[in-house]
Amino acid sequence: MLDNQTFLITGIADENSLAMKTAEKILANNGKVVCTGLGVTPFHKNLSEKAESFLNKNYEDFENACKKVLGNDVYTAPLDVTLPESLSHFADDLKTKNIKLNGFLHAIAMDKTIRNKSVKPMLEVTAEEFNDTMNVSAFSLVTLCHSLLSNGVLQNGASIVSLSYIAAEKVSFFPYINMSIAKAALERLTIEMAYELGKKYGIRANAIRFSPYMGSKAGNATLKVEDVERANRISPLGNALPEDLAHEIVHLFRKETRITGEIRHVDGGFHIMG
Amino acid sequence: MLDNQTFLITGIADENSLAMKTAEKILANNGKVVCTGLGVTPFHKNLSEKAESFLNKNYEDFENACKKVLGNDVYTAPLDVTLPESLSHFADDLKTKNIKLNGFLHAIAMDKTIRNKSVKPMLEVTAEEFNDTMNVSAFSLVTLCHSLLSNGVLQNGASIVSLSYIAAEKVSFFPYINMSIAKAALERLTIEMAYELGKKYGIRANAIRFSPYMGSKAGNATLKVEDVERANRISPLGNALPEDLAHEIVHLFRKETRITGEIRHVDGGFHIMG
Amino acid sequence: MLDNQTFLITGIADENSLAMKTAEKILANNGKVVCTGLGVTPFHKNLSEKAESFLNKNYEDFENACKKVLGNDVYTAPLDVTLPESLSHFADDLKTKNIKLNGFLHAIAMDKTIRNKSVKPMLEVTAEEFNDTMNVSAFSLVTLCHSLLSNGVLQNGASIVSLSYIAAEKVSFFPYINMSIAKAALERLTIEMAYELGKKYGIRANAIRFSPYMGSKAGNATLKVEDVERANRISPLGNALPEDLAHEIVHLFRKETRITGEIRHVDGGFHIMG
Amino acid sequence: MLDNQTFLITGIADENSLAMKTAEKILANNGKVVCTGLGVTPFHKNLSEKAESFLNKNYEDFENACKKVLGNDVYTAPLDVTLPESLSHFADDLKTKNIKLNGFLHAIAMDKTIRNKSVKPMLEVTAEEFNDTMNVSAFSLVTLCHSLLSNGVLQNGASIVSLSYIAAEKVSFFPYINMSIAKAALERLTIEMAYELGKKYGIRANAIRFSPYMGSKAGNATLKVEDVERANRISPLGNALPEDLAHEIVHLFRKETRITGEIRHVDGGFHIMG
Repeated sequence: MLDNQTFLITGIADENSLAMKTAEKILANNGKVVCTGLGVTPFHKNLSEKAESFLNKNYEDFENACKKVLGNDVYTAPLDVTLPESLSHFADDLKTKNIKLNGFLHAIAMDKTIRNKSVKPMLEVTAEEFNDTMNVSAFSLVTLCHSLLSNGVLQNGASIVSLSYIAAEKVSFFPYINMSIAKAALERLTIEMAYELGKKYGIRANAIRFSPYMGSKAGNATLKVEDVERANRISPLGNALPEDLAHEIVHLFRKETRITGEIRHVDGGFHIMG
Repeated sequence: MLDNQTFLITGIADENSLAMKTAEKILANNGKVVCTGLGVTPFHKNLSEKAESFLNKNYEDFENACKKVLGNDVYTAPLDVTLPESLSHFADDLKTKNIKLNGFLHAIAMDKTIRNKSVKPMLEVTAEEFNDTMNVSAFSLVTLCHSLLSNGVLQNGASIVSLSYIAAEKVSFFPYINMSIAKAALERLTIEMAYELGKKYGIRANAIRFSPYMGSKAGNATLKVEDVERANRISPLGNALPEDLAHEIVHLFRKETRITGEIRHVDGGFHIMG
Repeated sequence: MLDNQTFLITGIADENSLAMKTAEKILANNGKVVCTGLGVTPFHKNLSEKAESFLNKNYEDFENACKKVLGNDVYTAPLDVTLPESLSHFADDLKTKNIKLNGFLHAIAMDKTIRNKSVKPMLEVTAEEFNDTMNVSAFSLVTLCHSLLSNGVLQNGASIVSLSYIAAEKVSFFPYINMSIAKAALERLTIEMAYELGKKYGIRANAIRFSPYMGSKAGNATLKVEDVERANRISPLGNALPEDLAHEIVHLFRKETRITGEIRHVDGGFHIMG
Repeated sequence: MLDNQTFLITGIADENSLAMKTAEKILANNGKVVCTGLGVTPFHKNLSEKAESFLNKNYEDFENACKKVLGNDVYTAPLDVTLPESLSHFADDLKTKNIKLNGFLHAIAMDKTIRNKSVKPMLEVTAEEFNDTMNVSAFSLVTLCHSLLSNGVLQNGASIVSLSYIAAEKVSFFPYINMSIAKAALERLTIEMAYELGKKYGIRANAIRFSPYMGSKAGNATLKVEDVERANRISPLGNALPEDLAHEIVHLFRKETRITGEIRHVDGGFHIMG
């Protein structure tokens, strides 16, 4: 189904990341993947020892997981979407290696106002925290597009999928606040990309709102068991699973489907309840 | 992908019907189909000669198209969703033949206020015209579910897809008025089915809003070339094609995907433009 | 604020009806009202004794409440929106008395599938129950507009408000099912009227989704205390009050405000919670 | 109607600003206003001569317009919402003068990617341009709330209104791109404030999407005549006027109305067209 097609998968932290399930599904459909993880790049400056050690550990986990699950040949690279040099270095490298992308998954999010499953009220969020979360979690969609397009790596007709969730629109009972605003911006940016890149390159861009999921590192750091259970109870079909999400992403990645600008729900029907 | 699964396809008029493209795609994915068309049933009473001849011609076209495109063995039957006896007779027949359904496509719509590409203003629509359109185009989703469930024909975990379009929400420039209200009701009924059948039987129900399409009998009777071209021009990817729609329906038909209550757009991005 | 303006208020059952609060607010703003209630009209045929007695009691309550709250001079009349003759008789009468309308409140709803605070699942609703609820609760918006316009009673620039609630869009926890579909249709019809009557007559049409309210006869017959309390607890400001609703309606009734086609929430913020 | 109530009006540039119309309407309803304009504050550092001169001219225009339209006694002050010291100095000053606020209008927006009625594609917007626009046009809602609440200036039960437009949701034909994303964030922040401040202080927060308007300095700098005319032609009632907007804001400012988290349209019905 995805023969001779290659997709960039961002946002893998370890084996249990949602993005990893998608990478697996792409391989299972005869596609290829390119994976980026958070790690030290030559473009980081003045990293504290602690930060460097954190990034190194993070990248090691990412790389090991990729090799284990996706095979030893999988292309992996460190990428920091907030550093223009890191982005253009990565795009250059793909170009040099003659790797063309037929699409990518944007699954990057970071919010320092969530700590140990507890989250700052919006009123206490600082401008720096707001901007950091916005840049990493939303604007990075644009910078990724920009660097991949200006290097000729992202192909005409490619398909972009970004990960969102219901809180982009509603005040959810589970603990995201500052991040919700970034997700609202991410969805609107996805729509803007659908328009701008659709007209020009036939590129598609869609977002998916997924059920709360604790299985991943990110989910486990933020969600509480009772919140996930509550969503499971409310949703007509219970919470959706990572494979449901992977299935939907692969569907949207398929060539020649005139679907774009959609904000879709893979959530067991949670969003219909009021 | 759809091995050992059978889907009911309603709304086929001839070879060019959108529903037919979906039926073909199901076969191409190793699924089976059961098709119903509008025709004379034993439950029609007091049909005028003209009406009977219209229905017979309609059914003949339907049956010939099914055999030609889907093969001689395809199950076909006349069905009038506004006649409870016709519905229960059809469901009984499937039961007797031990045909279990894994889902169905609701693609039934009828509106007498549209004639020769011109449409009555809402203010002039009569109660009878309103009710007829509502019953055939919206409430039939419920009566179909009811009859197929009470006869044990629709399986747990089945998937229902109904066809809608942007006018269910917005005032569209192409000529549907009375029908728009029925589509709004159809979408809300789809959501209600997602809830009611989801909780009880794990059945999923989703609606798809498709681009304006003139290729079919229905589209050709209602749409004007300039309207379809306008939608094509506005949409970032141009109008979506019947195969895009079929692709999406087959995707939603697949087993074990926790997606329900969605109102999706397969429209080249038309819906993002404001 | 509403000097020299007259508004038709439908849906008053007794002193506690939401529509009555609106009528009072209009008077308090120097406007005038015309009220219709459900009662026997010369156009009812073959009424059973029981039905006639029910309608008579209903109309007596309505009329007494109107006189008590709105004064002895208030115009009252029986109206059955499902009988074209009743509608045109009513419009004729206004014309004869030279009463011009600057707008009206559509607050008419009826659903026989709700009895003693319990409600039929959608799957068990009959075509007759579906149609009856649709006609009375949704299509009546069109028939009212039609009769008032064709008699020259509804003025250019008039303002129409219809009453809806969140279940028009979402599956609500409080007991409305069949009615939800009618409200979805009512909202879409309101939008269609906004377009059709806006372009032609400068007439505005908006809908308001109000908090669950038990104070009225209708609310008390359908809602449970725990449901109203739940909405109150969830909503950031608690449930909205009848005077909040009346306030909003009077706002929308004011002349020369270019607001139309809106689906507004007067609900203490309930709709933002997901 | 607004007796003994005081509202902060931001976003006045000159006599023709939308915010000015609102200030006038508040006075006409017996309320009081406090106005802030962009100008040099003691907290600006390293301003270029050109920037200082621009700010001074801007503030002079603002102050003159306020005095002319709103009277010589109106409180005016320079405010830069991106400088925490400016915000807290302003809030302190109100506190010292014992001015309590019953609400405010957020009408602040700035986007350097729009120049001479032409606008950068999203793909070319830099992180700095994205962040600047976000901070000034969206996050400032939070910083304003924060400073006014922590100084006890914003009263319980106050009402906040923010100005948005259709492009927060859709790709509009008139030239806003980067700003659209900020407006999407502003709307989501308004909803978050509705929740957070509603629960805690009974404070309401709503956003209004207004028609494209060229009469103001901001509108004139960005919009083209043909775009405004197109919106006027499409909208069932034509474009809404500044007084329609002011009317709606004053309505939302009124005490004790349980309306919050709403995204409302004052746009002549533009948003219903698809």
